[in-house]
Formats: sequence, C-alpha cells, structure tokens
Amino acid sequence: MIEEKKISMAVIRRLPRYFRYLSDLIKLDIKRISSKELSERMQITASQIRQDLNCFGGFGQQGYGYNVEYLYEEISKILGTDKRFSCIILGAGNMGNALANYENFKKRGYDILAIFDVSEDKIGKKINGIEVYSTDKLAEFVANNKVDIAILTVPNKKIIEAATEVTSLGIKGIWNFTPSDLSLGEGIVVENVHLSDSLMVLGYRLREKGE
Amino acid sequence: MIEEKKISMAVIRRLPRYFRYLSDLIKLDIKRISSKELSERMQITASQIRQDLNCFGGFGQQGYGYNVEYLYEEISKILGTDKRFSCIILGAGNMGNALANYENFKKRGYDILAIFDVSEDKIGKKINGIEVYSTDKLAEFVANNKVDIAILTVPNKKIIEAATEVTSLGIKGIWNFTPSDLSLGEGIVVENVHLSDSLMVLGYRLREKGE
Repeated sequence: MIEEKKISMAVIRRLPRYFRYLSDLIKLDIKRISSKELSERMQITASQIRQDLNCFGGFGQQGYGYNVEYLYEEISKILGTDKRFSCIILGAGNMGNALANYENFKKRGYDILAIFDVSEDKIGKKINGIEVYSTDKLAEFVANNKVDIAILTVPNKKIIEAATEVTSLGIKGIWNFTPSDLSLGEGIVVENVHLSDSLMVLGYRLREKGE
Repeated sequence: MIEEKKISMAVIRRLPRYFRYLSDLIKLDIKRISSKELSERMQITASQIRQDLNCFGGFGQQGYGYNVEYLYEEISKILGTDKRFSCIILGAGNMGNALANYENFKKRGYDILAIFDVSEDKIGKKINGIEVYSTDKLAEFVANNKVDIAILTVPNKKIIEAATEVTSLGIKGIWNFTPSDLSLGEGIVVENVHLSDSLMVLGYRLREKGE
C-alpha cells in the first residue's frame, strides 16, 4: 500500500493528528467522513488532506468520503502503532517527572524502562513505578537492555555530553527537550521539542485576533 | 510589508523555526544565506522557503540570497517578539513546574505572573520566583491583572472545568498541555500541545531508518 516514493516530513508530522482525530471519530461511532468534514475538524484544507492521504495510496472514493476505521487502521500501520519502542529518560527533574507520568506514551507503544540522574536524593526512588538510576549505571543498563530512544531532559549545558554518551552507546533515537537544536549526523534520528515555538504561534494568533 | 491575504497556519507554524535558525546564524556572525543553505539547515525544501517568505513580501533577491539580519528582524516583527504577553499557569504539578522554570519564555516576551493550584501544600510556595495561589483566588487575580494566556497543566479530567473558568474570566489565549483537544469557539485561541505526536514522528523515522 505504501508507495516507494519519499514521503515528506511535513506529511509525516500531520499523521499523528489524523491518527488522533480518527480515533476520536471511532469513539463517537462515526463510520464515514468526507474530506470536507475532516478538514473542518482538523483545520487543514480538504485538498491538503486528499494530497496527504494520496501519499499513502488514497483510501478515499470520490464523493463517498473516507471509511473511518479503515483509514485509522492504515494510518496506524504507517505510524507503526503496533510496534513497541523502549525508552529511557535522562534527567529526573520536573520535565523528566512530567514525561514519566504521561500515560499516553505507553498507550502509543513507548515504554519507559528507566530514568537516570546525577542527584543522590533522586537515585533509587521511583517515578510512576519507574526506577531512577545513577547516570554512572547508564552504559551497563544500555548494554543489558535494548533501548531505542533516549529522552533528554538534562540541563541545557549538559546536552552535548548527554547526546554524545547515549549515541556512543548505540542508541539511535533522541527526543530532545533542551532548548538546543541537536543534529547528530546520518545514523541518529533526533526530534527536538521546542515548546516556545508553540507559545509563539499562540501569541501570533492572539495578536492577529486582537487587531 | 505584510500582505493582506490570509497566511496559512502551516506557514505560521514554521515562523518560530525560521526565527530560531536565523538567530543562530546571527550568533555565528553569518550575514547572508541562500535559500539552498537555509533549506539544508532547516530540512525544508528551498522552494518551500521561498514560498513561505513570499507570503510576507519576499525579503530575498534572486541569486543573491537573504540578508540574515534583515530577515530575522522582519520575522521578529511578524511574530511580534517585541510585544509582551502575560501568562498564568493552572496546575503546579511537574509540567507546571517545568514550564515555570523554562527561561526561554520570558526571553520571547511571555511573562508568567502567577501559578494556581488546589493543593494546600503547594499554595503559598514559589516556583522560580513565581507565587503559587489557591485556585479560589483565580477570578480575583484576573480581575486585577491583565492576563493574556492561561497555560493549562491540570489533570485531564479537570480540563473542561479549567478552560470554562478561564475563558469566562475573559482570558483569550489557552495553551493546553492536557491530552484533550480543546476547541473553544471563535473568540478563543487555543494551542494544544501533543507531546505524543512528536514521539510518534520519532518512532516513524526510527523504523524508516531501520528498514
């Protein structure tokens, strides 16, 4: 079903949104939706939606709309929601705590195996049932457990050190919560989370409304 | 400089990224950049960049590239980084704490005035110098202080109640960190932060690399 052509990152970034909206529709027992309705719900133009879904082979019939469950299942497959990923968190501060407590990740296939920190008063405690280890134990832990993703919530000045260490241990995926944009070369996949970007978009839209 | 035509949300969402990349270039003392170079750094196609910047009147000269500082200043103006917004945080849990400690927001023009929580052991304390008040004091606080944005980090089951309260008090901007997608009608601007979306994109890219 998936064509060989390269799918653009812009399309890929919209897939989790389709996934969420479609799962909402399923909960509401909605069987079928037109690209126009989906467009209104998602605030994406209908032509954009048609174009996006065409990257994956279509799924729709002209004038007939999309079969919600079928589309949901196909997008799930593309996103690999049946696959599981093992994650560790570096940094047991507030963000590390917040992420360890985020129940949605497990539902989406992302298991947090362990948390690492340098602070003596955090080591040995548990956050949402997940043990906090000393950063000294990181190499040993990664040697004994398959770890796909390192979630970095360390202080900004420690980010290069942390990223270098986890990638040298063979971890290929980095979810970076520090303000620094990481770019770690071909073999490593990095998602940089920039919370201020979303806040700046909110500010832009507020000013636009006010004018 | 800004044209009257409606700028699409997709373009607006990319502006903070341009803003960050350009400010990095300024720090590196780079004066001029081609759309090709900017494209490689930002992993957006050069034609997309040209198209995006054309929405705001261009800024570039064919074959000559972009003047980094000029482009940075124009995008700053569009994003309104010279404007200040007053924010409050509802919920002094881990995410509320993490956000209250995020230094970048103030730099970008977003001041956090106060935090509200229902928990007796949090009320009266300070987080990063910002006082935590009882939620009972919310209406009084908003009556006495101009508040542009409410940052909602309350438990998911409290989100409707919290959103209803802050909007009834006249707050027009909502930054929502709960997993629920809020949609609050015409007058209210909502940015829903879905951290799992970013994690799912990371998982997709990891699988794609591995195959």
